[in-house]
Amino acid sequence: MTFDGMWEALASVGRDGRSGGYRRHAWTAQDAALREWFAGEADRRGLDVVTDRAGNQWAWWGDPDADGPGLVIGSHLDSVPDGGAFDGPLGVVSAFAALDALRDRGFRPARPIAVAHFGDEEGARFGIACAGSRILTGALDADRARGLTDADGVTMAVAMTRAGHDAAHLGPDAETLKRVGTFVELHVEQGRGLADLDRPVAVGSGIRPHGRWRLDLPGEANHAGTTLLADRDDPMLALAAFVLAAREAAEEHDAVATCGKVRVEPNGVNAIPSHVTAWLDARGDDEERVRAMVADLAALAETYRGTVTEESWTDITAFPAGIATRLATLLDGAPVLATGAGHDAGILASAGVPTAMVFVRNPTGVSHSPAEHAETDDCHAGVRALAAVVEDLAR
Amino acid sequence: MTFDGMWEALASVGRDGRSGGYRRHAWTAQDAALREWFAGEADRRGLDVVTDRAGNQWAWWGDPDADGPGLVIGSHLDSVPDGGAFDGPLGVVSAFAALDALRDRGFRPARPIAVAHFGDEEGARFGIACAGSRILTGALDADRARGLTDADGVTMAVAMTRAGHDAAHLGPDAETLKRVGTFVELHVEQGRGLADLDRPVAVGSGIRPHGRWRLDLPGEANHAGTTLLADRDDPMLALAAFVLAAREAAEEHDAVATCGKVRVEPNGVNAIPSHVTAWLDARGDDEERVRAMVADLAALAETYRGTVTEESWTDITAFPAGIATRLATLLDGAPVLATGAGHDAGILASAGVPTAMVFVRNPTGVSHSPAEHAETDDCHAGVRALAAVVEDLAR
Repeated sequence: MTFDGMWEALASVGRDGRSGGYRRHAWTAQDAALREWFAGEADRRGLDVVTDRAGNQWAWWGDPDADGPGLVIGSHLDSVPDGGAFDGPLGVVSAFAALDALRDRGFRPARPIAVAHFGDEEGARFGIACAGSRILTGALDADRARGLTDADGVTMAVAMTRAGHDAAHLGPDAETLKRVGTFVELHVEQGRGLADLDRPVAVGSGIRPHGRWRLDLPGEANHAGTTLLADRDDPMLALAAFVLAAREAAEEHDAVATCGKVRVEPNGVNAIPSHVTAWLDARGDDEERVRAMVADLAALAETYRGTVTEESWTDITAFPAGIATRLATLLDGAPVLATGAGHDAGILASAGVPTAMVFVRNPTGVSHSPAEHAETDDCHAGVRALAAVVEDLAR
Repeated sequence: MTFDGMWEALASVGRDGRSGGYRRHAWTAQDAALREWFAGEADRRGLDVVTDRAGNQWAWWGDPDADGPGLVIGSHLDSVPDGGAFDGPLGVVSAFAALDALRDRGFRPARPIAVAHFGDEEGARFGIACAGSRILTGALDADRARGLTDADGVTMAVAMTRAGHDAAHLGPDAETLKRVGTFVELHVEQGRGLADLDRPVAVGSGIRPHGRWRLDLPGEANHAGTTLLADRDDPMLALAAFVLAAREAAEEHDAVATCGKVRVEPNGVNAIPSHVTAWLDARGDDEERVRAMVADLAALAETYRGTVTEESWTDITAFPAGIATRLATLLDGAPVLATGAGHDAGILASAGVPTAMVFVRNPTGVSHSPAEHAETDDCHAGVRALAAVVEDLAR
C-alpha cells in the first residue's frame, strides 16, 4: 500500500459529514477502526504488533528485546473535534511509507525499527493531551487517568474496558520504554514557519511550555425574564470578563491564551446559568511568564468566586541538539523550528528518550480545523526525509 | 386524588438526580409520561380528554360544542432544563384540585369547564416558547414549527411523529379555540412581588414585551497553541464583548438581557472556535426601548461579522382590565401585578380570548431553577382562589 493508498483508506474514518472535519476520539468506534487499520498495515508488512499497557500500538521490524533498543518512528491517529486529516495520521502513514521506501531499496537496518501509534494524543475526550505517552512514561498517574471522565460522565477506565483494553494494567511501562532507543515523530507543521521560509520540511528544536486549566464559575440559576439585574448572579458575565482578560494578558506576556471550550448549565435561553465551565489553553516561549499570566487570570476568576484548576502542564521541551543538528544537515540544511503544539515526542523527550521531530509544510498554517492542509508533494518530501533519517539513525 | 397526592405523583417525572431540577421537554418520554398522567387525572374525574391539532390536551366537564363556549383553567407541564417543580405544573394540578373542591361542595356550573395542558410552553427543546398555544392560535406558522430542530438536529415534526402525534395536521385550530370562552391560568410567581407585599395570591395585569434572538458569530478554527494572536479570528472574543454589552445596554434601557445558552464549535480545549452561537433573551416594560436595545446589540454583532436573528417576539400583553379587577375584588383585594415571563395566557389573550392569570407567592422569587419554591399553604390558597374564580365565572 503506497502513501497515497493509505491516505485514501483513512480519509473516511471518523469524518463528520457536516463540518468535513474529523472526530476521532480515544476509545470510540472510530478509534477502534484506526487501531484495526494500524494492525492491518503492520501485518501486511510482516511487523509484530504489540499494544503496551497504556494502549499505544507498536509495530516492530526486528526484535527490540534481543537486538534493541530500537529506532521508533510514528505519531498519533486521533483528532480534536472537527480536526484536520494531517495532524497525527501524516506521521503514522509517512512512517509506514518510509519503511516501504527503505525496504524497496534493500536497506537492512542495524537495529530494530518500529512504527508507533500513540493513543489519545489530543485529549479531546478526557481532557488530558498526550494521555497515551504520559501514562506510558508515568507523567500521568494511572489512577488519575482511569478516573478522568468524558462529557457524558464515562470514565476512561470504563471507555477502555468497553473497547477491550484492560484498564487495570495502566501505569508506567518501563519494559516498553526501554525498547525505544530513539524516537522520531513526523508531523504536519501547525504554523507558517516553513511556508514563510519556502521549504518543504524542517527539524524540530523543541516545544514551548504549555498547559490547560479548567475555569469554574458558579452562579445562581434564575428566570431570565423576571429577575432584576441587581438580583442576578450570572456567571456568563464572569466568563466574558475572563475571556477578554485572557486575550489582553496574552498580549502583555508574549504568550497565547485561548478559551475554546465552554459548558453552560443548564444552557437554557430563558434561564440565567447556574454554572459556567470553560477551559484555558495557554502557551508561550517563557515558562515563568506563562505561569504569571495564568496566576493573574486565576486572581481575576477569584473575584467572581471562580476557581482555576490546572489540568496539565508541560515545561519547555528541548529536543537533543545533537540529533537535531545532524538531521538538519542530512536534510539539505533544513530549518530548525520550535513549536507551540504539544506532541508525544515532547513527552518521550521529557522522560529521557533521545527524540527528534520532522515537520512538513502547512501552506496556511491552519490546524485543528477541517481546513488543515499539506500539499501531496510536500507529504512525499516528508516521507523521503523520514526514510533518510531512518537510514541514517539505524544504519 | 388530592392536591398533595397529585403533586407527589408528578415529583419524580423527569427529575434530574444530579441537579435536582426537571428536564421535561416537548415530545420526549418525560413529556409522554406527563400526558399520560394528565389523561389519567381527567379520566378519574369523568372528564373528556381531547388533544387538539397542536398537541395541547383539554379535559372537558360538559360539552363545549353544545353548551359552550366554556371556561378553561390550566397551564403547562414542561420545564426549562433543570427547571423547578412549580413553573407550569402548579397551574394544572391546582386546576384539577379546584374542580374537586367545587364538586365537593355541589357546585353545578352554568357552562362547560375544561382543564387545559398546553404543550411545549418553555420551548426548551425547539427554541420557541409557548409553541403549543402559538400553533393553536396561528401565531407560530405550522411549517416553521415542523421544521424547528433540537440540539441533535431532530425536527419538531419528527419528534411529534415519534411521540405518536400527527404533525401533518398542525395549524391554527379555530374549532378548539371557539370552545374557549374565558381562560384563567394559575402560575407560581417568578419574582418577589407577592413576598414583598406579604400576600399569598395576586391577579395578573399583563405580560411585559419579550423576545428571543439567536446570535451567530463566525470565526476561523485553528490551533490554540500555534496560531499567533494577530492571525486569530476567534469568535469567543466577540461573544465576550456581546455579553458585556448586553448587560450594559439592559441597564441603560431599563430592561433585562440574558445570554443563558451558548454553543461553541468545535468546542475543543486546544482549538480556536470556528463558530459561536448564543441566544439573547431580552424583555422590558417598553417595547420601543427593548427593540432599540436589541438593534444596538445587533449593530455590535455586525462589527464582528455576526448576525442577530429574531426567533420570537411578543408585544406587551394586557389582560382585560374588567376581569382582572373583578377577580382582584373577589380575592379579598388581591394585588394586580405584571410579569416579565411569557405564558400561554398571553398568547391566548393576543388571539382575543378573554384571559386572566392568578399568581401564587414565591418566597425567594427564584424560578427556572431547582431552587424554585412555593409553600404548601400558599399552593392551597391558590387552589381556593382558583375555585372561587371558577365559581364566579361559571356560575
